[in-house]
Amino acid sequence: MYRSHTCGELRLSHVGTQVTLAGWVQRNRKLGGMTFVDLRDRYGITQLAFDEAVNKELNDQAQKLGREFVVQVVGVVAERSSKNNKIPTGDIEIVVEKLTVLNASEVPPFTIEDETDGGDDIRMKYRYLDLRRNVVRKNLELRNQLSFEVRNYLIKNGFIETETPVLINSTPEGARDFIVPSRMNPGEFYALPQSPQLFKQLLMVSGFDRYFQIVKCFRDEDLRADRQPEFTQIDCEMSFVEQEYVLNMFEELVKQVFRNIKGIDFKEPFLRMPYAEAMEFYGSDKPDIRFGMKFVDITKEAQIRDFAVFNSAQYVAGICAEGCASYSRKELDGLTDFVKRPQIGAKGLVYVKCEQGGTFKSSVDKFYSQEDLKSWAEKMNAKEGDLLLILSGDKVATQKQLCELRLEMGERLGLRDKNVFAPLWVVDFPLLEWDEESGRFKAMHHPFTAPKPEDVQFIETAPEKVRANAYDMVLNGVELGGGSVRIHNGEMQQKMFACLGLSQEEAQSKFGYLLNAFKYGAPPHAGLAFGLDRFVALLAGLDSIRDCIAFPKNNSGRDVMINAPSIVDKEQLEELNIAIKLETK
Amino acid sequence: MYRSHTCGELRLSHVGTQVTLAGWVQRNRKLGGMTFVDLRDRYGITQLAFDEAVNKELNDQAQKLGREFVVQVVGVVAERSSKNNKIPTGDIEIVVEKLTVLNASEVPPFTIEDETDGGDDIRMKYRYLDLRRNVVRKNLELRNQLSFEVRNYLIKNGFIETETPVLINSTPEGARDFIVPSRMNPGEFYALPQSPQLFKQLLMVSGFDRYFQIVKCFRDEDLRADRQPEFTQIDCEMSFVEQEYVLNMFEELVKQVFRNIKGIDFKEPFLRMPYAEAMEFYGSDKPDIRFGMKFVDITKEAQIRDFAVFNSAQYVAGICAEGCASYSRKELDGLTDFVKRPQIGAKGLVYVKCEQGGTFKSSVDKFYSQEDLKSWAEKMNAKEGDLLLILSGDKVATQKQLCELRLEMGERLGLRDKNVFAPLWVVDFPLLEWDEESGRFKAMHHPFTAPKPEDVQFIETAPEKVRANAYDMVLNGVELGGGSVRIHNGEMQQKMFACLGLSQEEAQSKFGYLLNAFKYGAPPHAGLAFGLDRFVALLAGLDSIRDCIAFPKNNSGRDVMINAPSIVDKEQLEELNIAIKLETK
Repeated sequence: MYRSHTCGELRLSHVGTQVTLAGWVQRNRKLGGMTFVDLRDRYGITQLAFDEAVNKELNDQAQKLGREFVVQVVGVVAERSSKNNKIPTGDIEIVVEKLTVLNASEVPPFTIEDETDGGDDIRMKYRYLDLRRNVVRKNLELRNQLSFEVRNYLIKNGFIETETPVLINSTPEGARDFIVPSRMNPGEFYALPQSPQLFKQLLMVSGFDRYFQIVKCFRDEDLRADRQPEFTQIDCEMSFVEQEYVLNMFEELVKQVFRNIKGIDFKEPFLRMPYAEAMEFYGSDKPDIRFGMKFVDITKEAQIRDFAVFNSAQYVAGICAEGCASYSRKELDGLTDFVKRPQIGAKGLVYVKCEQGGTFKSSVDKFYSQEDLKSWAEKMNAKEGDLLLILSGDKVATQKQLCELRLEMGERLGLRDKNVFAPLWVVDFPLLEWDEESGRFKAMHHPFTAPKPEDVQFIETAPEKVRANAYDMVLNGVELGGGSVRIHNGEMQQKMFACLGLSQEEAQSKFGYLLNAFKYGAPPHAGLAFGLDRFVALLAGLDSIRDCIAFPKNNSGRDVMINAPSIVDKEQLEELNIAIKLETK
Repeated sequence: MYRSHTCGELRLSHVGTQVTLAGWVQRNRKLGGMTFVDLRDRYGITQLAFDEAVNKELNDQAQKLGREFVVQVVGVVAERSSKNNKIPTGDIEIVVEKLTVLNASEVPPFTIEDETDGGDDIRMKYRYLDLRRNVVRKNLELRNQLSFEVRNYLIKNGFIETETPVLINSTPEGARDFIVPSRMNPGEFYALPQSPQLFKQLLMVSGFDRYFQIVKCFRDEDLRADRQPEFTQIDCEMSFVEQEYVLNMFEELVKQVFRNIKGIDFKEPFLRMPYAEAMEFYGSDKPDIRFGMKFVDITKEAQIRDFAVFNSAQYVAGICAEGCASYSRKELDGLTDFVKRPQIGAKGLVYVKCEQGGTFKSSVDKFYSQEDLKSWAEKMNAKEGDLLLILSGDKVATQKQLCELRLEMGERLGLRDKNVFAPLWVVDFPLLEWDEESGRFKAMHHPFTAPKPEDVQFIETAPEKVRANAYDMVLNGVELGGGSVRIHNGEMQQKMFACLGLSQEEAQSKFGYLLNAFKYGAPPHAGLAFGLDRFVALLAGLDSIRDCIAFPKNNSGRDVMINAPSIVDKEQLEELNIAIKLETK
């Protein structure tokens, strides 16, 4: 062993002990005849002291140590004269007797500090140096801790972690698959799993009863901040349970994680909000309920005067921004610009300021009386000093716009504190959603989700009415996980495939093994999957899941550190019976 | 919840309680006016009792239950009149009041029993039914338990589980890579990792200090019983440690696993055997030391008479098979045939029977005197009643043949008991081995293994002499894991690449990021990886790792259950800029 202690371990009680430490040079300071070196490892920082008067040669050696040199020192622990109460080892220093450079270092391309001078690109290229920074490594430590907590909870509750295969079949439903040519089966391909969905259901058919897996999944999609081509799921499935049992089991998991990792104790059961309500009041199936500002529908109250914009709208609704009546013209114009951005797409924004003394000032003053505006304010529960922000148009589109506006206002008003956690379940999702592009229904969750028994009657006549026994756990406006009660009956599964426009032959060729398995005694079962990356990002208060992945890919799916993907040898392709066919445009 | 208890839970203390159970029909027996159904789930089997006299309709219903039907029953726990002491629930039965068929089942294609009537092929096709069998599911439960123990130990010892990427670069060294076309980077490919070797070394450069990961790895090799295209490694790496520390850390891990899972306490430190000794006495770098029968070199003692076979041989050596002097002609012929099989390739087998009264009978009687044979017997420590089996020829080849013969004799003599576990470390491997095919040296472990400091002097002049700080853990003749101290110095790494015939440009293009990382303060580090599949197989006493993998592939790399790999859509290939190019022969 190159060390007797780590750099985070020594305290006053060790004074007088001879120790050996090893680590990286964080800082090197000359102070009169003394040299002080901060030695860093994963566990902390310890100050090394060299005294010219005691050993000139050693002190000279120390002065030559550059940043990020790897060194080993032997010395005696001594009490510091000027203590540093910012670090746990700040009471002591090592009076060094022997110094060995284990490895030198060139000057790193950016500083290895919490606040680094390195930009995103260079830090990704030198990710191995970026990971030396405490703030980055802490995210990975948190990730490890989260997985550990999750495993402990699930194993304690009888779940068996079971590995499902990575080389499977392509099922071109939903997102694109990554595929892998098979050398032994020329012309054929494996696919990387988008999730172990079918395998976990088969494990239920196998009587595994409770399954989980923390598992890599793959999607060949265009990327953005919270998407990576490979991501990690906490994947779970249970037999002989109803939805209620599943919700309780995983709610308790999340509570335990927060208790043990963040010291936060959720005493109340999580709110359960039907999908319809989430859309009505938040315009989103993942509402951020850290703050109120719920939508208020004032269509009726708005369509009473000669204002064509509102009168022609299917839906007029607004939110009440507390204390914002003092917003300047510039601020209001800013909000208007915000909702008019192409990504949001509103045509305009109507505001009503609820001023002191019970008067109202509005962008639609000339169409509505003070009484009219007062009735809106009352319906929206506004007080003096509040600001009403109102959008109108097609209902679904307007709800989406209002959702963005609400989140923006929450941000501006500081209501989206990363240290506040507001979880809820969104339940009763529609089973199907109409897909304009293909002109048919597609499964809202996936084609294995069970309809609510009481809604099954509509499945052929009015599919859009059918609700699913599906649920999402939402935390601070992010979908942390989701799942459903599954179909466990072959006939119902066939019916579902038919709804989705899959012929019996197609269903058989794509999911034949599942339909087959259902013939041999499939138990009722249900499950759920959490996104591990998102979970860590939320716990750590990160904006991008990239920061909690050791070696992430960029938006082109490229690992810039190792420069993957890359060209492969011609022989390799030949052996795999494939050729590159680039389009010549 | 569909049940109040599991099928493995009820005891005499529950008598009189009303319970709800759910599970699969294992067996259905009619006995006079009674029907008895064995209800099975993961946790056990509980007997259900139906009485025609009490409720004829219910009894009729019960009689119609086929094997593997999924049912739910409500009833009262009662003491059995004839108890079954073979199962924990054998004292009680459920007097059923209500029976619900949750799902019917067709007659399964093989019996769901420990001893099934299903052959290998059909069981793999219906793997979801095969996994219902206790003996199979137990292996997967053991696997889960092993991972859990390993994680607990490593996390307790400060290792951080860190996920490394699955989509990486192809490095055509060693085995073949699986590759994945990149849609976003036309003409370029990812590769699936054969191990996270370089990433874990980079994590050491990052100061992670102690890393582990239980991780899927991939090799596109021709398959056999203990190889799968995807397999799982327990992958570990540590900084600031020497070999000794690593061996102790992981020896204790294995000891803890055996203690907690098998109730076996290894009190002594594991034997550490230099590679040279393993080859000399066992002809293998993974000796099975559950039994002795070490090789004895009798080249000198054999080359004293006019027997050309021995005289022309580089090496004559044998093993002593205790108590086998009574072997018949047929048995000896059988052994001769065994060593002459093409896979083993010996030219013949010489035997010496050490008979009662101190006389010897041998296949080379006419060349050697009784005194000669006696001197062999003495050197080989043979007693009266033992049998000497002797091979000769080129040393390396003969050692390999003798190794096979020794294992065969161990098998025949019942010395390879699956319930006996004999672990050891094999150490001091050669750094390099000569590769006839390419006419150059290749790394015995991998190109990142550090030479022993005292042998570095030979690295350019006599590379074959250089030993590595590399180690394998061997258990019952199987390589359970292996690792090495790594090179952490760029210059030494370049020297190693040069030894392997890699030009500086090639090295830079393939491993540039590692060489780069070594410029910025790489700490001394070392690591190891265990094969999880093999570890489970050994603990469970299985012959093939396939039996401890939930959904394994066959020898053609095919998952016969889901029929992967398979054809993919033409559009998919086009989007990926590749085409199939089958050779027309």
